[in-house]
Amino acid sequence: MEINLTKELKRFVSEDRVSKNETVLSLHSKDESFHTPRQPDVVVFPIDTEEVVNILKFANENEIPVVPFGVGSGLEGQVIPIKGGISLDFQLMNQIVEISPVDLLVRVQPGVMRKHLNKELGKYGLFFSVDPGADASIGGMAATNASGTTAVRYGSMKENVRNLQVVLAEGKIIQTGGKAKKSSSGYHLTELFVGSEGTLGIFTEITLKVYGISEMITAARAVFPSVKQAVQAAVSLLSLGVPIARIELLDARSIKQINMATGSKYVEDVTLFLEFHGIKDSLANEVYLTKELFIDSGCYQFEFESDSNGRARLWDARHNLFYAYLHSNPGKKMMNTDVCVPLSKLAEAVEQSRKFIDESGLDGTVAGHIGDGNFHAGIVIDPKNPFDMARANRVNEQIVDFALTHGGTCTGEHGVGLGKMKYQKREHGDALDIMKSFKRVLDPKGILNPGKIFE
Amino acid sequence: MEINLTKELKRFVSEDRVSKNETVLSLHSKDESFHTPRQPDVVVFPIDTEEVVNILKFANENEIPVVPFGVGSGLEGQVIPIKGGISLDFQLMNQIVEISPVDLLVRVQPGVMRKHLNKELGKYGLFFSVDPGADASIGGMAATNASGTTAVRYGSMKENVRNLQVVLAEGKIIQTGGKAKKSSSGYHLTELFVGSEGTLGIFTEITLKVYGISEMITAARAVFPSVKQAVQAAVSLLSLGVPIARIELLDARSIKQINMATGSKYVEDVTLFLEFHGIKDSLANEVYLTKELFIDSGCYQFEFESDSNGRARLWDARHNLFYAYLHSNPGKKMMNTDVCVPLSKLAEAVEQSRKFIDESGLDGTVAGHIGDGNFHAGIVIDPKNPFDMARANRVNEQIVDFALTHGGTCTGEHGVGLGKMKYQKREHGDALDIMKSFKRVLDPKGILNPGKIFE
Ligand SMILES: Cc1cc2nc3c(=O)[nH]c(=O)nc-3n(C[C@H](O)[C@H](O)[C@H](O)COP(=O)(O)OP(=O)(O)OC[C@H]3O[C@@H](n4cnc5c(N)ncnc54)[C@H](O)[C@@H]3O)c2cc1C
Ligand SMILES: Cc1cc2nc3c(=O)[nH]c(=O)nc-3n(C[C@H](O)[C@H](O)[C@H](O)COP(=O)(O)OP(=O)(O)OC[C@H]3O[C@@H](n4cnc5c(N)ncnc54)[C@H](O)[C@@H]3O)c2cc1C
Repeated sequence: MEINLTKELKRFVSEDRVSKNETVLSLHSKDESFHTPRQPDVVVFPIDTEEVVNILKFANENEIPVVPFGVGSGLEGQVIPIKGGISLDFQLMNQIVEISPVDLLVRVQPGVMRKHLNKELGKYGLFFSVDPGADASIGGMAATNASGTTAVRYGSMKENVRNLQVVLAEGKIIQTGGKAKKSSSGYHLTELFVGSEGTLGIFTEITLKVYGISEMITAARAVFPSVKQAVQAAVSLLSLGVPIARIELLDARSIKQINMATGSKYVEDVTLFLEFHGIKDSLANEVYLTKELFIDSGCYQFEFESDSNGRARLWDARHNLFYAYLHSNPGKKMMNTDVCVPLSKLAEAVEQSRKFIDESGLDGTVAGHIGDGNFHAGIVIDPKNPFDMARANRVNEQIVDFALTHGGTCTGEHGVGLGKMKYQKREHGDALDIMKSFKRVLDPKGILNPGKIFE
Repeated sequence: MEINLTKELKRFVSEDRVSKNETVLSLHSKDESFHTPRQPDVVVFPIDTEEVVNILKFANENEIPVVPFGVGSGLEGQVIPIKGGISLDFQLMNQIVEISPVDLLVRVQPGVMRKHLNKELGKYGLFFSVDPGADASIGGMAATNASGTTAVRYGSMKENVRNLQVVLAEGKIIQTGGKAKKSSSGYHLTELFVGSEGTLGIFTEITLKVYGISEMITAARAVFPSVKQAVQAAVSLLSLGVPIARIELLDARSIKQINMATGSKYVEDVTLFLEFHGIKDSLANEVYLTKELFIDSGCYQFEFESDSNGRARLWDARHNLFYAYLHSNPGKKMMNTDVCVPLSKLAEAVEQSRKFIDESGLDGTVAGHIGDGNFHAGIVIDPKNPFDMARANRVNEQIVDFALTHGGTCTGEHGVGLGKMKYQKREHGDALDIMKSFKRVLDPKGILNPGKIFE
């Protein structure tokens, strides 16, 4: 680069918040995925929207890439600055700006962490529902359209972001929505920006829907002789309109691994983990009905608990899943697939995925947010072993191929980043051209997280 | 126009489906609003996507306006071809293409009517939730982001359209989504097209979420001494997470009008109409809890019923609302405002709206989908009386001003069309430029419903 980046940036941002420190650069070169790291030229820690505006104006003028950084818990290499430039780290913009209990809304800066947010909301009897496995930043979650175990009832980020304050590439600030619950005014921009992975604009404030904490929470665990029966049971429950809050599946092989690694003695069969949120007496009925329905679908073990220790015990196996695999495979990593398929294809997709893993000779889990048709094959790999990588990539491709053939998507929640770019044309067809044209309109010089989602 | 439009169109569409009949032109010159009619040059009734592609290619080449037409039940003049051209009527594309009970999805052509759809879905124990007051086409509902009484639980069209097949101005066909419940793949286009009022593309197939019909439905009616207390009661209910399916408010003046027009003897006070959907035993608890909560908030009359006659009786007043006003004012029309405000501002907004109407000297109702913060002032007018119109427009403006001042929107469900264009800049600020730039990308010659949403 011809210009002195650090010196220029220090014109808008105080010295201590512009860093070329080797450790800092290294931390911003990667996320939690297996994708190859690449360092940014510099890391900047803005403290307000105005600084973001100034940085973008400068970067846009000089065609310097800018990659927003939440906490780097992403799984598809979204924060890797593959073309260098500025990594824009939001950890100092971590204020909860406003909690509005009556409106069931909260307004936050992008660096607020979801667990911290929930701690604060709890003081008002409120919670924010979206719960990816990692403790991520709200900015990163909005930018990947994250979801997790509660999406089946409360939706993904797309359904829970009410408004975004966005700084565009050229430094303009827009609001994509408002405070109203519904609107038919103008075009809906919020959903377009949610999931755009830092490629369309940078979020400096986010308004989220929140919910009242339920009077009662009940957890359950249900064991089935086959994936097919477990999925069928879940579908029946959903069709009935039981407002189930969580419904997770682990396949038999995954339970076996948990027993091996932790010494637990769970029946080694397909298991559903459930959670119900509601009013005390209503909940008892819902749990009872679920049990009846599940037994009709072949469930042969059903336990439930409402106090918090009992609930934790029932979900123990689910929580130990990744530990169980990685503990038994020291030094290894996991490649996570993330397809989402229509519910009518889910059982087959889960079974096929197990088959693909087993055929590859690799080890792995198949587990998922099955109320949404979204599941992950977690394939145990040594990222430095090209033979492992080739086989794992092959399994990933086979699973995505199954999903796309059956009307599903290559990524239900982790996002595109680097790993799912190659499937975009097949999945979106000519709509991809429209997406690209929007990108050109909003970021004519291509400075915003270049090389992600599409070339 | 230099070319012979009818003759050219008959190259792609059979003769009997291209009409210049005076009655047909007149039917396509207006909707249910008070906006001034204008005839199209010709009305075309396509039967499949291919015809739509050919018509658009031709129209785009020759820069002829194309205005999609559902059934013209819109309330903001959206279908009025203010620049002439082709009115594209979808009444012959009225097939339900596929019902997928396991996926809880249905795929339809745009001309399918919502009541007809629900009749067919009922055979599978399913229903489609969105219910604008009129029996509208699914295409028109998607294009206005319609909602109605059930949005508080099931969402508006935006939350219920899973995929759109869209023909773009230049004749390209795209799919905006897929069949999966969640996706973080590419940019979310579906929500952008939903609510675009025929200005971005033409929908030729729509995939909708559907729901299982509840085991039990209970209706209730609750009377309060003030709007404030009624709204507070509704807010408490929502915060508690009771999955209420409908919650409608009528102000005291509206109930009085109903008594006058129909001879009923309802207490002339603020009234909430509710509906609960769920499992039998759970529902009883929810209704009981609601009653307790409401009484704490000042409710002094609470009735509920579960059989269908009893439910109809309880909701009678709500259903008679428009009749009551228009019956007593023969020959008159209603101008409907449609703001949506944050719940914390709702009581004040409703009360202010009543005040604005009363001050204007006009007659009218204030009623709304208050679980969403969305309500309508229905102002009784003689559209031919300029003095009426001026006063009604003034009330409309006062109400919109209140909403925009408090973070709300000028239209919660009816859309922008002609009537809400003037508020777009104030509501969206610089985001409006982004919307316009998307319009230019998708419709460079401006043939798609020109002069709507913005100039
Ligand atoms: C153990 C584990 C479990 C996980 N489980 C789940 C799960 O269940 N569901 C799920 O969805 N994900 C899951 N993830 C993935 C990850 O947690 C999510 O993708 C999360 O949303 C990333 O948040 P982050 O703050 O780490 O963002 P980062 O990884 O830092 O960034 C992600 C993307 O967001 C962009 N971005 C960040 N901040 C902004 C901003 N202010 N404006 C614009 N763009 C911005 C970045 O440029 C990047 O493109 C898991 C990850 C791990 C390690
Ligand atoms: C008594 C009454 C009560 C009402 N109550 C409600 C209510 O509670 N909630 C509510 O939301 N609305 C309500 N409305 C308004 C109206 O019913 C809705 O706006 C409805 O969605 C319009 O549907 P339509 O089929 O009549 O569309 P039209 O009025 O024919 O068209 C509406 C818009 O959709 C576009 N369009 C139509 N088909 C297509 C297509 N295939 N592709 C692209 N664009 C298309 C048109 O160009 C136009 O811009 C009410 C109307 C009346 C008369």
